[in-house]
Amino acid sequence: MNLYAPVKQNRTLFDKHQGTIERAIEAVHKREFYAQYPEMPSPQVYGETAEADQKKLYELQPGAKFDRLKQTHDTWITSDEESPFTMQKLSISYPAFSEAGKYITAVQAAWSDWRKTDAKTRAGVLLESLERVKGSFYEVAFSTMHTTGQSYMMSFQASGPHAADRALEAIALGYQELTRFPEKLTWTKPAGKVNLTLEKFFTTVPKGVSLAIGCATFPIWNTVPGLYASLITGNPVIVKPHPKAIYPIAIVVAHIQEVLVENGFNADLVMLAPDTEKKLITKELAENPAVKIIDFTGSSSFGQYIESLPGKVSFTEKAGVNSIIIDSVADLGAMAQNVAFSISLYSGQMCTAPQNFFIPKGGIKAGDKHVPFEEVAKAIVDAVKGLVTHPKAGPAVVGAIQSEATHKRISEASALGGKTLLESAPVQNPEFPNIRSASPIIIELPASARATYEREMFGPIAFVIATEDTNQSVELASGSAREHGAINCGAYTVDNKVMESIAEKMAEVGTPVSFNLTGNVYVNQNAGFSDFHVTGGNPAGNASLTDPEFVLKRFTRVQAKVNHG
Amino acid sequence: MNLYAPVKQNRTLFDKHQGTIERAIEAVHKREFYAQYPEMPSPQVYGETAEADQKKLYELQPGAKFDRLKQTHDTWITSDEESPFTMQKLSISYPAFSEAGKYITAVQAAWSDWRKTDAKTRAGVLLESLERVKGSFYEVAFSTMHTTGQSYMMSFQASGPHAADRALEAIALGYQELTRFPEKLTWTKPAGKVNLTLEKFFTTVPKGVSLAIGCATFPIWNTVPGLYASLITGNPVIVKPHPKAIYPIAIVVAHIQEVLVENGFNADLVMLAPDTEKKLITKELAENPAVKIIDFTGSSSFGQYIESLPGKVSFTEKAGVNSIIIDSVADLGAMAQNVAFSISLYSGQMCTAPQNFFIPKGGIKAGDKHVPFEEVAKAIVDAVKGLVTHPKAGPAVVGAIQSEATHKRISEASALGGKTLLESAPVQNPEFPNIRSASPIIIELPASARATYEREMFGPIAFVIATEDTNQSVELASGSAREHGAINCGAYTVDNKVMESIAEKMAEVGTPVSFNLTGNVYVNQNAGFSDFHVTGGNPAGNASLTDPEFVLKRFTRVQAKVNHG
Repeated sequence: MNLYAPVKQNRTLFDKHQGTIERAIEAVHKREFYAQYPEMPSPQVYGETAEADQKKLYELQPGAKFDRLKQTHDTWITSDEESPFTMQKLSISYPAFSEAGKYITAVQAAWSDWRKTDAKTRAGVLLESLERVKGSFYEVAFSTMHTTGQSYMMSFQASGPHAADRALEAIALGYQELTRFPEKLTWTKPAGKVNLTLEKFFTTVPKGVSLAIGCATFPIWNTVPGLYASLITGNPVIVKPHPKAIYPIAIVVAHIQEVLVENGFNADLVMLAPDTEKKLITKELAENPAVKIIDFTGSSSFGQYIESLPGKVSFTEKAGVNSIIIDSVADLGAMAQNVAFSISLYSGQMCTAPQNFFIPKGGIKAGDKHVPFEEVAKAIVDAVKGLVTHPKAGPAVVGAIQSEATHKRISEASALGGKTLLESAPVQNPEFPNIRSASPIIIELPASARATYEREMFGPIAFVIATEDTNQSVELASGSAREHGAINCGAYTVDNKVMESIAEKMAEVGTPVSFNLTGNVYVNQNAGFSDFHVTGGNPAGNASLTDPEFVLKRFTRVQAKVNHG
Repeated sequence: MNLYAPVKQNRTLFDKHQGTIERAIEAVHKREFYAQYPEMPSPQVYGETAEADQKKLYELQPGAKFDRLKQTHDTWITSDEESPFTMQKLSISYPAFSEAGKYITAVQAAWSDWRKTDAKTRAGVLLESLERVKGSFYEVAFSTMHTTGQSYMMSFQASGPHAADRALEAIALGYQELTRFPEKLTWTKPAGKVNLTLEKFFTTVPKGVSLAIGCATFPIWNTVPGLYASLITGNPVIVKPHPKAIYPIAIVVAHIQEVLVENGFNADLVMLAPDTEKKLITKELAENPAVKIIDFTGSSSFGQYIESLPGKVSFTEKAGVNSIIIDSVADLGAMAQNVAFSISLYSGQMCTAPQNFFIPKGGIKAGDKHVPFEEVAKAIVDAVKGLVTHPKAGPAVVGAIQSEATHKRISEASALGGKTLLESAPVQNPEFPNIRSASPIIIELPASARATYEREMFGPIAFVIATEDTNQSVELASGSAREHGAINCGAYTVDNKVMESIAEKMAEVGTPVSFNLTGNVYVNQNAGFSDFHVTGGNPAGNASLTDPEFVLKRFTRVQAKVNHG
């Protein structure tokens, strides 16, 4: 006899990918360097003709139907997507439902086999889908570039291998937690002369319909962890992309649906639910009582609304204000080059980009010398100027500005007060003459201007803040993290005691710190399998990619006991 | 260099208890039978003179100060506690603060060393405290008996070994999760000609002040899992017992404080915050912004209030309505004996006690015979009658009625409608002539009377419900679990297909099922290390004892990276 017997078991796909999942579980637990998907676009790894072939695919898409989805639909929606590089509308049409409620009904109808199959079968199907996505990494890159404004290289890496690694990480932890306890056992309790014996069966029950709400800047990277975490734990998922960035995640959903159907599952288990600015459907979906799980990346105000919805488990990444604390440096130039890159990369449109630079007003120790505050600020300003005006590096690093709102925020930043140390200017891109671009603006503010610098100024806007001393810098950075959230913190110090103190104080407000980064390692970067992304320990988000909670909260453990008398 | 360096490390206590914690982690993951603390009161295990010595201690306590707590206080509060066996007030005085906010200040002030010490030190201290509690199991039993109304044997088992095992389980899982990922490592990423190298440090950050709100029926069993889970993960805890059941948990808190102080930690890390019906302080504590974690056992309405408080992680066990589905039996008498015991044990005042018996109106198969509905109901009624009127077993099984409210509910139950099959009556207890007792009342209701039987009728009130067939029985039991919550379900069937279907349908509503229990295994019982208690998957509670979430939600993982250039 077997209770909770799984349906549609598939060992073939699991066997094919077993090595990958076991290696991923090991990597997550060792937190060493590991990447299943190499981050550089390489013909050897990704196929000799892959880039050219997929570029053609991409070029056919604007103005046309995206017809690779296998999901049920009753209409087509033409998207608001627009390339920040060309300023041309993409005008892609996606299959959709005319009413949001129909997505709920459809995913619920498609759910039953997936809910009742086992962890191995789910893991096999999901890993196979990632392999298919790998075969589309270049199209993913082009579509990401021309929706988000990320440079081509960043689009490839962030939406391709890095995102796939994060997805694999979620599958691996999900698989591990689903199989952590035995499925069945015979339980025998000594009870005096006799033994009491029960057969026990354990199962995992998915929570219910999952809603993955995407953002406009990282449409794949920020969506796939929650999407795959919900799927591995047995839940159906409605993917509601940002209306300005549908195409990249549509490719992912299409591949998942393809593998589901090939293996006898219903494509509607995962549905793309596109919408347009004119008729947004996020709230209607989120408030539906059948929706039990919500993954969200976006603004603090919408994130707080999501978190406040009763009867849901939510995983949010909201706004954070990241700080760089400069106490002392070994090499002023090396520090300045490094932080200049972090400010400029994708024009500060990463949730991990630094905004506030706290520097003691009396200056800092740099190598053997004492360097006044103004000189530290100038070193950063000069490094940014050098980078963004570099004819090749400049446009490649800054990419384009995703939204008009961010563009407007930059142009209005000089009115915030303080002393503008570096004006923003368009960054010319020879390939895209119509690009919407803007180099960083750097403004000096007094420590007292907390109301200004403790707001997230999304985009390439940085503040240099003169503090009494490093103690005050840490106090301001940690206070801001506690009240307004922070995803990370950078710090420069040559003093181990100061380092320990900064690490400790920022840990108390749930903020990881990167110390003394120079060269090609940047505070913006979190490595899959090794770095937790967001801690959940401050208002920047209530979840962490990918800690055990991220998968555990998506299912319930239930058991049965059978007495054979 | 070391970031996040622990303070006050203590290897002595960890070494002493290392075997226990490792065995407990193994037991939790194998879910086999395991008990660290033998459940029978045994002189060999617990000491030749332990019972007599501790009885004396107990007898000195009524009317006196409980002076074993080492916590800061500014007043003494005389409790409302009253023995349901003697109906005498205990009038014990406990050290207390005159204002609830002072507990917050005190535990926060006591927190810093505990927050910064490591998992091994915490585990050693906490396991040592359990050993001290073990040395008080008999006093724990007397104090539990004379506050809750549990029989002496049940008081010993539930508040003594069973509770200590559950506490150990929480410590073990907490320790395992705290140490799941490395504390530090060197991370090396191949990057073309060079390698990028970072030192990485990981730490765990406790969420903040934890509030453990106790109940009147299981003052230790329901409090220690959350209490120890919060402590192992580094949080300070305010224990707010039910005003009618302070003494038992005061003994536990005293032992924890004693071991804390012996090892250089501040006693105020764990504080008893007693209150009286006249001036309840639970809401004031719960709403304090510094309180980040709340463990609660009690009513659904108060539990919902706790869950709705913003900015808190809550772990609730609320009311549930448990069902027994009777489809077919091998032996009618064996089933009836078993469920009669489950209804009667501690007069139905267990959260795991069954309330609703669903039986097909056309009767059931029992062995080779077909037995009509009326006969099945009569077998249960007769078994209960036989049990509670048995001069020795009766009083030992039913114990006393903890509260006047429950007593009133029983006396008013016959007015609920339906047909009373068995009247409630006082159960005489020769040792305690003044006892507040009541045998079970059993009422037959039609399937249509959902409004009556889907409410939790806390106490010895059972409904026998005639259904169309087993399908309807399952539908009603699962619907009730989905809407109103259930902690468990019992089922009797000789048909494996029916068994699979019941297990499946109840799993979907987060409800574990025990099949065909007869003899000395009862649906009310959940075994530490093997059975999860409450699933979190229906309104009976949002947490499960002890799954990984139960400890993980109490802390945050934070990391630091150091570049050495």
